[in-house]
This record gives sequence, C-alpha cells and structure tokens, in this order.
Amino acid sequence: MDRIVEMSVDPNMKSTKIIAYTLNDLIQDLDVTLKGNPNCLINGVSPIQQAQPGHITFLTNSQYRKYLTTTKASAVICTEADATDCPVNAIISRNPYFTYAKIAGFFATEFTSSAGIHPTAVIGENCQIDPRAQIGANCVIGRDVIIGAEVVIGPGCMIADGVHINDATQLDSHVTLYHHIKIGKRTRIASGAVIGSDGFGFANQKGVWHKVPQLGSVHIGDDVDIGANTTIDRGAVEDTVIHNGAKLDNLIQIGHNVHIGMNTIIAGCVAIAGSTVIGNNCMIGGGTCFAGHITICDNAMITGMTAVTKSITTPGVYSSGIVGAVPNKEFRKNNARFHRLDNLIQRVKALETALKERKDS
Amino acid sequence: MDRIVEMSVDPNMKSTKIIAYTLNDLIQDLDVTLKGNPNCLINGVSPIQQAQPGHITFLTNSQYRKYLTTTKASAVICTEADATDCPVNAIISRNPYFTYAKIAGFFATEFTSSAGIHPTAVIGENCQIDPRAQIGANCVIGRDVIIGAEVVIGPGCMIADGVHINDATQLDSHVTLYHHIKIGKRTRIASGAVIGSDGFGFANQKGVWHKVPQLGSVHIGDDVDIGANTTIDRGAVEDTVIHNGAKLDNLIQIGHNVHIGMNTIIAGCVAIAGSTVIGNNCMIGGGTCFAGHITICDNAMITGMTAVTKSITTPGVYSSGIVGAVPNKEFRKNNARFHRLDNLIQRVKALETALKERKDS
Amino acid sequence: MDRIVEMSVDPNMKSTKIIAYTLNDLIQDLDVTLKGNPNCLINGVSPIQQAQPGHITFLTNSQYRKYLTTTKASAVICTEADATDCPVNAIISRNPYFTYAKIAGFFATEFTSSAGIHPTAVIGENCQIDPRAQIGANCVIGRDVIIGAEVVIGPGCMIADGVHINDATQLDSHVTLYHHIKIGKRTRIASGAVIGSDGFGFANQKGVWHKVPQLGSVHIGDDVDIGANTTIDRGAVEDTVIHNGAKLDNLIQIGHNVHIGMNTIIAGCVAIAGSTVIGNNCMIGGGTCFAGHITICDNAMITGMTAVTKSITTPGVYSSGIVGAVPNKEFRKNNARFHRLDNLIQRVKALETALKERKDS
Repeated sequence: MDRIVEMSVDPNMKSTKIIAYTLNDLIQDLDVTLKGNPNCLINGVSPIQQAQPGHITFLTNSQYRKYLTTTKASAVICTEADATDCPVNAIISRNPYFTYAKIAGFFATEFTSSAGIHPTAVIGENCQIDPRAQIGANCVIGRDVIIGAEVVIGPGCMIADGVHINDATQLDSHVTLYHHIKIGKRTRIASGAVIGSDGFGFANQKGVWHKVPQLGSVHIGDDVDIGANTTIDRGAVEDTVIHNGAKLDNLIQIGHNVHIGMNTIIAGCVAIAGSTVIGNNCMIGGGTCFAGHITICDNAMITGMTAVTKSITTPGVYSSGIVGAVPNKEFRKNNARFHRLDNLIQRVKALETALKERKDS
Repeated sequence: MDRIVEMSVDPNMKSTKIIAYTLNDLIQDLDVTLKGNPNCLINGVSPIQQAQPGHITFLTNSQYRKYLTTTKASAVICTEADATDCPVNAIISRNPYFTYAKIAGFFATEFTSSAGIHPTAVIGENCQIDPRAQIGANCVIGRDVIIGAEVVIGPGCMIADGVHINDATQLDSHVTLYHHIKIGKRTRIASGAVIGSDGFGFANQKGVWHKVPQLGSVHIGDDVDIGANTTIDRGAVEDTVIHNGAKLDNLIQIGHNVHIGMNTIIAGCVAIAGSTVIGNNCMIGGGTCFAGHITICDNAMITGMTAVTKSITTPGVYSSGIVGAVPNKEFRKNNARFHRLDNLIQRVKALETALKERKDS
Repeated sequence: MDRIVEMSVDPNMKSTKIIAYTLNDLIQDLDVTLKGNPNCLINGVSPIQQAQPGHITFLTNSQYRKYLTTTKASAVICTEADATDCPVNAIISRNPYFTYAKIAGFFATEFTSSAGIHPTAVIGENCQIDPRAQIGANCVIGRDVIIGAEVVIGPGCMIADGVHINDATQLDSHVTLYHHIKIGKRTRIASGAVIGSDGFGFANQKGVWHKVPQLGSVHIGDDVDIGANTTIDRGAVEDTVIHNGAKLDNLIQIGHNVHIGMNTIIAGCVAIAGSTVIGNNCMIGGGTCFAGHITICDNAMITGMTAVTKSITTPGVYSSGIVGAVPNKEFRKNNARFHRLDNLIQRVKALETALKERKDS
C-alpha cells in the first residue's frame, strides 16, 4: 500500500508530518463498496458534524444522521441506506462501525518503542523474558516471571512473583499484577488496574473479622481489555477467570471467584460480588451491581445501574431501579409515595371490598 | 504581615514550631468585619464543638449552630445574623465558608520543595522542562514533553510522550498521563488519577468485539481539580474536555468525548458515559450515572445516585431512584409492590370502571 | 507440629514442593472435633464440588450442601448437623468458616521476603525505619517517616513526609500515603489505595470554587484491611478515622472527616460523603452511598446499592432502591408508572371520595 507523506506547511507545526491515504488504500481487505473517487486523499478522521475536506467520517448513530447532507468530510462510512443521501464519497458497509474501527487504525499514533529491558527496571531471579518483549522504566518484576514475545510492559508496572504473561499482551504504565497471575495473548490492561489483590473474605468469630487466606489466582484469557483503575480480586480457593475476548471498562470491581464469559462487555463502575458467574456475549451497563453466588446466562443484556440480585436464566434485556431524572420536587413526592406503596395497596383492596359488598347487597 | 512564632514548651514536641497570627493579620485583604479584639492570637483551626482557646472556627451549616453559644474557640467566622449570639470574637462575612477557606490557608502544612529534577527521574528526549518546575523521584517522563514554570510533579508519576503541562499545575504522586494530554494552569491532580487511557470503543463483528482506535486526546483547563483514582478517557475522535474551574472528586469515571463545563463540581463515584456534555456551573451528587450522548444544560443540579438517561434542558434540581434507607422488611414489601405496580394500575382502572357503571346504571 | 514435605513426581513441576499435613496437625489449637482419621494427609484446599482426594474443603453456605454426600475431598469442615451426612473425615466446628480461615493459612503461598531497604528505594531525611522492616524496590519515602518492626512496604509505594506506620503493617505495591498519615499495627493496604488525598472542600464565591485547605489527616487503626484502589480523604479540620478491625473492600470512597467504627465491614464501590460517622460492627453492602453529615448507629446492616440519606439510630437491616432485575419491557412499564405514582394516589383518593358519597347518599 502506498502511504503518501507530506510535510505540513503550517509554520506552527513545521515538524509534524501529515500522512494521507487514498480511499482505495483504506478499504483494501475490507468487505465494503466504494461509491465515489478511489483516489480521493484522506488525511484524518473527524466526527460528521465537524469534519473538514480531507477527513473521513462515519455514521452509525441515527442521532447524527441530520448532519449527513451537510457534512464537509471527503468521505463517509455508512450503510447502503444512508449512502443514498451522502453528498460525498461513501464507503458502504453492512457494519459501518467495524469498518470505521479498521480504517481509524491508519490514523492512530505510532509509538516507536524498542524491545528490551529499561536499565532502571528491577528484575527478580529466574525470570524468562523474551528478547522481543519490552519492559519500561522503573518496573519491578518479581522472581519466576515468564514474559512472552512482543509483550509491552509500560513504565512503573509492578509484577509479582510467578506471573505469566503471554505473547503480544500490553500493560500500560502503573499496572499491578499480584503473584502467580496468568494472562493470555494480545490482552491490554490500562493504567492503574490492579489484578490479583486478595479477595474480600473474612470470617467473624466473636465480633472480630479474621482474614480468610485467598489461595486462588486470576486467569485472564486472550484478547481481553481491562480498563483504568479496574480491580480484579484473586480467587478464594479457585481462580477468578476473565475469558477470551471479554472487554472491561474503567473502575470495575470483580470479586473473588467470579467468571466473566467470552466476549462479554462491561461498562464502567460495575461491581460484581464474589463467586458470581457471568455468561458469554453479555452486555452490562455502567454502574450495575451484581450480588454474589449468582449465575447470568449467555446473551443477557443488563441496563445501567441495575441491582441484579438473582440468577438470570433466559437471554434478554434486564433492568431494575428507577431511572430518568425528573425535577426534584416531583421526585420527592413520588419517592415518598413509594415508601407508602403498601399502604396504597391496602386502600385499593378496601375499595375493592367495599365495591364488592355494594354489588352483593 | 507579622507572623508570631513561638517555640512549643511541650517536651514531646520540642522541635515543633507553633505559629500564631493576630485576628487582624488573618483578615487582611478579606471583605469581612471583625467584632472583637483584633490582637487576639490564633494558633489553629478546629470544628466549633471541639475548638479550644487560641483556635478559630466557622459556622456555615445550621446543623452545628447549637454549639455556637458554648464554643471555646477564640474566634468564629459567621454571618452577621449568627454573630449576635457569638460569645467570642466574631469575623462577620457574607460568605463565611469562603472566608474560612482563605484563613485556613494560613495553617496549611508548608512543604519545602525545591525546583529541579530528582536524579532518579527518567526523562525522555526533546523535553522542555522549565527550570522552576519540580520533578519527583522515580518519575518517568516520555519524549517531547513540555512542563511549565512552578509545575510540581510528585514522585512516581508516569507522563507519556507529547504531554503539555502549563504553569503552576500540581500532580501528586502516582499520577498517570497518557500521550499528548494537555493540562492548563494551576490545576491539581491527586494520586492514582489516570488521564487519557483509551476510551471504551469496540465494534462488534460476528460476535467478536474489535477495538476502535481512540484518536482523540484529553484537554484539561486551568484551575481544575481532579480527585484520587479518577479516570478520564481520551476521546475517540475529538478530545475529552474538562473546562476551566471544574472540580472532580475521587473515583469518577469520565468516558471518551465527554465535556465537563466551567465551574461544574462533581462528587465521588460519578460515572459519565461517552459523548455526554455537561454544562457550566452544574453540581452533581455522588454515585450518579449519566447515559452517553446526552446534554445537560448549565446550572443543573443532580442529586446523588440519580440515573440520568435523557438530556436536561432547563436549569433546576433533578433526581431519580428511590432514596432513604428504611427497615429491610418494609423495603422488601414495597420493592415487591413496585414490581407489580402495573397490576395495581389495572386494579384501580377496574374500580373506576365499576364505579362509573354503577353511576350510569 | 510436623510438616510433611514431599517432592513432586510430576516432571513438569519438578522443583515444586508438595507440602502435606495430617488432619491432626491442622486442628491443633482449634476448638473443633475431628470425626475420622487424625493421620489422614491433606495437601491442598478445594471447593466442595471440585475437591480431590488429599484435599480439605468446607461447607458454610447451604447453597453448596447438595455436594456434601458426593464430595471427593478427604475432609470437610462443617457443623455438627452437616457432619451426619459427611461421607469422609469431618472437622466439626461451631463456626466452620472461621475454622477454614485458620486451616487455609497452612496452604497460603509463603514469600521469602527479607528485611531491609531495597537499594533503589529513595528515603528522605530523618526517617526512623526499624531494621526488621522491609522497603521494596522503587519506593519513595519522604522525610520524618517512622516505620515499625516487621512492616512490609511493597515495591513502588509513595509515602510522604511525616507518615507513621506501626509494627507488622503491610502495604502491597503501588500504595500512596500522603503526608502525616498514621497507621496502626497489623493493618493491610492493597495496591493502588490512596490514603490522605485532600478532602473535597470548595467554597463558592461569585460562581467560582475556591479550594478549602484540608488541614486534618487520616488515622487508621490496628488490624484494618483496605482494598485495592480504595481512596480515603484526609480530614478538613479533624482527622478521618478508620477504627481498629474495620475491613474495607476495593474501590471505596471515604470522604473527609468520616469515621468508620470498629469491626465494621464495607463491600466494594461504597461511597461515604464527608463528615458521616459509621458505628461499630456495621455491615455495608456493595455500591451503597451515604449522604454527608449523618450518623449510623452500631450494628446497622445496610444492603447493597442503598441510598442512605438520613441518620440511622436503631440497629437492624436497612435498604432502599428497587432491586431485582426484571425483563426490560416490564421494567419500563413500572418505571413509567412510578413516575406517575402521585397521579395514581389522586385517582385512588377520588375513588374513595366517590364511594363515600355513594354510601352517604
């Protein structure tokens, strides 16, 4: 593929290279149809309402369709139906967001990182670190650690004894891995994530809580994503397991012994209590909490801020809580009514009885 | 201003200096009225119910007014109305909490930090670090980083390539800044905060989630405060923006492309999903969650634990959920009633019909 | 006590020692009764449904009782009632989970850590570090820090000036302690926890938020556990206090001036706003939020995701919210009904009036 590189003429950014690709370059290997000029040069990506000539954009959310006919972008990734109204080059896809994901990759910042261990990193005894791996500055690696090929460990990561990280996995800076964690291939862990801290297990004896040793570990599969400052506790006896392809956002809490199924995706600030098992291909909205020791079947979708207290056995969309912010005055009235809901039922029952008595009399 | 320094006579703290100021010293430059003795010496700050002679205290919450007449403090910062009952020196202010904020600054711990780069810090190529900036021990700074005058970077911070930090901004220890983040002046970021991790964008193709490159950055304005372990994702295409004067508490999650308006204040554990725009001067209570792609107007106040699912277009106070802990037995009854609320409506409708039929007959 | 050590014969783990204990060894000093063979060898711990010969397991949750009669474990820790149906050796305890906690300790990974300060640690002036303490690689310790005997500070911890850590306390890696924090004995703090960041105090003057100096500190007692990425703010004037024996899970936010009582246990993702006081022996479920300036009495139990907005003065179990995920279609109907709850009340009132009029007529 040809990559066209031009030097910018903007004197304020005179050392910045502007890289441009033809539309034809961008759609190689993609299952799409181009309606327009394959030689049109694209030098950046923008939202549809802000795009400028030279940019490519995408339309996947109907909320933004109103901007389609007036977009200044040079090309739009969209469905066949939307392409009808597209005033510029259209890349027609059955899955425009996926097509966008692939094309956006051309414009991602490239970091020139070189393999090897930074001289300030502290490495324990008996480690097996692939020469194609990269260990950042000020990392501390324990003993008996195995790190595969093309693994990137960002600066300041703390990796305890006996950890095993497979090929092409990437840890951003400030990641903590406790002892004996196992991580698969091509997994990414964002900064501040803590994997393998002790599960929250205490036995109460005469009013005092005694720590229950957490003997399990954490096993993270291939192609998993773990967000910033997310915490995943090690198992109490068995391992906590994050299966292949699962995607976890930021500030999520995963309790001990939890299993997250394959390709399940979890938004930020979700809390999953110990020993709960989430199936494959689930989608979980932000702020949702799960009780412990329950099982969620495959293909369940849970909306945000739900309190899941029992197992779910049938695929579908599930919710709880009261959502939708309303003026506080109205809220307070209904909130108070809710707290007397049982009383309301009694009043309706009384009415039913009274009416029935009338009818009978 | 005269600062009166006395050596303590307590043998256990014989090296600790006790610093005292006159009330007259403390109120210089403040728009307040002193009722009492301007030469009264003040050597510390305390809550109103625990204050001792020599202490100054404040009254801003009516819950604490009952302690006013018996306080042992030497001076109280309060409104004119409260000053009537104040048995000691009163500093009368139209905004006692603001006045307290200014006076408390006299008693804050002073750290003697010296400019310069700690020898253990690792600095990349081509950085521009102002000689008046301070870089703590074991920091790792990438390449092409610009750091302004009087910036303080605490120990163990990880700052990636191309970051730009303006004058007088302070990062506490263990802060992570991803590549190309821009931060304004006088902004403070607490430990463990992660700024600029990839937004949570995945496109599903045949059941597998594919990462959508996150091409935007994060732009943080002037005079912003960001709490401990808060996470702010970089934009998908555009930047995520935290505007001037915004204040964010701990453990907040800000999704990609979010904008937080000027002087908006957000309490702990709030989650804001991607592409949502919060206006200026908003106040958001703890534990509240926002859906993505919505807009909140200026001057909206959202109470804690609200689930905001739609845009808000009129200033005011908004809420959702059921708040107010009640005995669990009562809760379970009303919770069950709620889950049959639709059934209750049908019963009331039936009653209405029956009564109407009676009337008609 | 005799510890029986055997070399594994598995060629893949030929350097791993398998350690076995007799049942008699394991129950020394425990208030239990053994029903079975005291010389039975135990080499590991497993869940009841997965245990293999040589393993010990436990039965504390009735959900798992169905596995008792078919377990392959060599021994089960259980109550006297359950022991009747136990097909293998039984360790009979009045508190099986506590007994398990003690026995599991035999099988916890032992780390051979040696006292002393890692050469890469940076230590400030005038510190008193007990020679039996251990300071990990790349730690940064401020000045005037006191660290007691047998304290373990994991790698990459940041400990600011004037901190005091008492004997046998353990910090995992990446812990942040701000200046002048005091920590008792035998306390454990997991990775990523941030203790002593400034409380969230701002005074609004003409639309702009001004920082209120946070002059207090944090005092953490003995035998406290603090989870990964939990944040505890320093006090505004007084200290924030975590009393002896309190147990805090991951991703908890503790606001300034909060007190957590003795032996109170708090699950993940709880948020406690400023100046709230939680009593002794409380149990707080995950995701619960507390308003500020309220008081919770001793022995209160709050279920998960509750919004506690007022003080609680009587021991007992408390809840709020709507819990229990239901199909989204049903949820949306009831959610909408809720938002018109006041209207329903009016309709019921109208029915009552109409019926009364009929009766009176």
